Amino acid sequence: MDIASNPKPHDRLADALAEDMAAVNVLIRERMKSEHAPRIPEVTAHLIDAGGKRLRPMLTLAAARLCGYQGSDHVKLAATVEFIHTATLLHDDVVDESKQRRGRPTANLLWDNQSSVLVGDYLLARSFLLMVETGSLRVLEILSNASATISEGEVLQLTAASDLKTDESIYLQVARGKTAALFSAATEVGGVISGAPDDQVAALRAYGDGLGVAFQIADDLLDYQGDSAATGKNVGDDFRERKLTLPVIKAVAQATEEERAFWVRTIEKGNQQDGDLEHALELMGKYGTLEATRLDAVAHAERAKQALSALPDSDMRAMLMDLADYVVDRLS
Amino acid sequence: MDIASNPKPHDRLADALAEDMAAVNVLIRERMKSEHAPRIPEVTAHLIDAGGKRLRPMLTLAAARLCGYQGSDHVKLAATVEFIHTATLLHDDVVDESKQRRGRPTANLLWDNQSSVLVGDYLLARSFLLMVETGSLRVLEILSNASATISEGEVLQLTAASDLKTDESIYLQVARGKTAALFSAATEVGGVISGAPDDQVAALRAYGDGLGVAFQIADDLLDYQGDSAATGKNVGDDFRERKLTLPVIKAVAQATEEERAFWVRTIEKGNQQDGDLEHALELMGKYGTLEATRLDAVAHAERAKQALSALPDSDMRAMLMDLADYVVDRLS
Repeated sequence: MDIASNPKPHDRLADALAEDMAAVNVLIRERMKSEHAPRIPEVTAHLIDAGGKRLRPMLTLAAARLCGYQGSDHVKLAATVEFIHTATLLHDDVVDESKQRRGRPTANLLWDNQSSVLVGDYLLARSFLLMVETGSLRVLEILSNASATISEGEVLQLTAASDLKTDESIYLQVARGKTAALFSAATEVGGVISGAPDDQVAALRAYGDGLGVAFQIADDLLDYQGDSAATGKNVGDDFRERKLTLPVIKAVAQATEEERAFWVRTIEKGNQQDGDLEHALELMGKYGTLEATRLDAVAHAERAKQALSALPDSDMRAMLMDLADYVVDRLS
Repeated sequence: MDIASNPKPHDRLADALAEDMAAVNVLIRERMKSEHAPRIPEVTAHLIDAGGKRLRPMLTLAAARLCGYQGSDHVKLAATVEFIHTATLLHDDVVDESKQRRGRPTANLLWDNQSSVLVGDYLLARSFLLMVETGSLRVLEILSNASATISEGEVLQLTAASDLKTDESIYLQVARGKTAALFSAATEVGGVISGAPDDQVAALRAYGDGLGVAFQIADDLLDYQGDSAATGKNVGDDFRERKLTLPVIKAVAQATEEERAFWVRTIEKGNQQDGDLEHALELMGKYGTLEATRLDAVAHAERAKQALSALPDSDMRAMLMDLADYVVDRLS
């Protein structure tokens, strides 16, 4: 396939929003400064400069554009969303003791855990100041709620990840915390700032939620069946880290007594041996849980597109529809 | 002195605000809940139940009362302030690897660093939701700014604490971050929510700032001359932890070449031997820096009282005046 003539939906979005995103990047640089503590912009720049797809701020810009917004507050909100995301990554890498992020050593490794915790706190505070500047209490409520759901989901994951009692509804709650809460808040505030009618705002929120859940399920599925050259991750990292994700949860739910003992040993007790990952993949194959997981992701992506159909047709809407397809198309 | 007939200003304040504080405590319990992650209220309760003086929420309640406030939003703001403070403590204990807080093992020790980081994040998000409920963008701006100053001050302390180039202005910035930023925001929002005129709001803010800086200087001074039975801390903890505080900064500023070499070895390089703390105290004695530090604290307390004199006289004002005196009286 010729990439130039058939770019990925994400790249087409980036193209269409290039001017706004440039303004977002300028604002991010400006607001990550600190009058007194130079380490703050150093740590932030390390993460921000590493790139990342900037998907979340693009969702805010796209939602605002979709609703015909003419002002400039969407740029502030997009920067807010990226700050919240960056703060979350800084804290996550401390929580997970991660060593790599976006192909570079993590901030907690280059500086220390202290800097990552405190710079994350600083960025959160700055993100709230940006929101205050928009003068919208509704925006503040939506993004504060998203922040609470994010940390709640992370705490839940802390206690539920290696617990075989974790079922699909707990998994979904964690996925919302890790991904969908910020996706849906990002699209929702784009609608709110545009003064879009309530049903459109609700549709944008539902789109972000469906997209975010599909995205997280896809991510967890790729951990078991991805091409490690393409994903940059090794197959089975989640298994080795004893993280229960959807493909395993579905296999545990149908496990025989003997299979259950296998999951207890490898996930709950973390006593893993050579060949265990292969056996885990066999069990997922036996119950078809990888395919069932893929179908779940597809259903959430469909839900996202369905929601979006409540909005008037436009190029931007088509790109967001394609984005939802793309998240799950890469799975098949 | 008969304690019953001459209670401390803090206890008199607690008495006068007992009804409001009871409402604050109910609200804190209610809002620290989590639908999905029971670990969140567990960790929060561990810290909240340990007591602490609840000085910061009392400052908000007192400021609102002082301005004749008749509504109920001051209770929400007081709970907000306590949530921000609790989140800061959770993160600080991770940053400092602390083992004890309020006479109990720290949350990072009882659970883990992960829980402390994430529960702190959750409480910050909840505190913003509480503020949104008051509908005041100005309150949101003041407390977001305080949050930014807090983390900025902590980051600054991380890099400046053992660096002999740290001067009194950097020390003051750190003290504002550690203590005065939240004190001054706490009193300021009490005025704002009451609809007090700008000059009164500014006076309340200045009072909180003076009180907070005096409080932090006093704390740092007591580290060198406190009665360890009363403070619960060992004399010289800051010296052993290589934290430059005002008494040492003043001694470094006047040091001979030989004395400077001593500070470089003990603080910058952290190479400490038996007798070093005693020698450090000798040098502080030689330049009278403990007394000079005490006089600085007194000056900030005086500044706090001076600011408060812009407000109409009342019992509440008298108690806040006495509180400023008390912070420094315990030093002499």
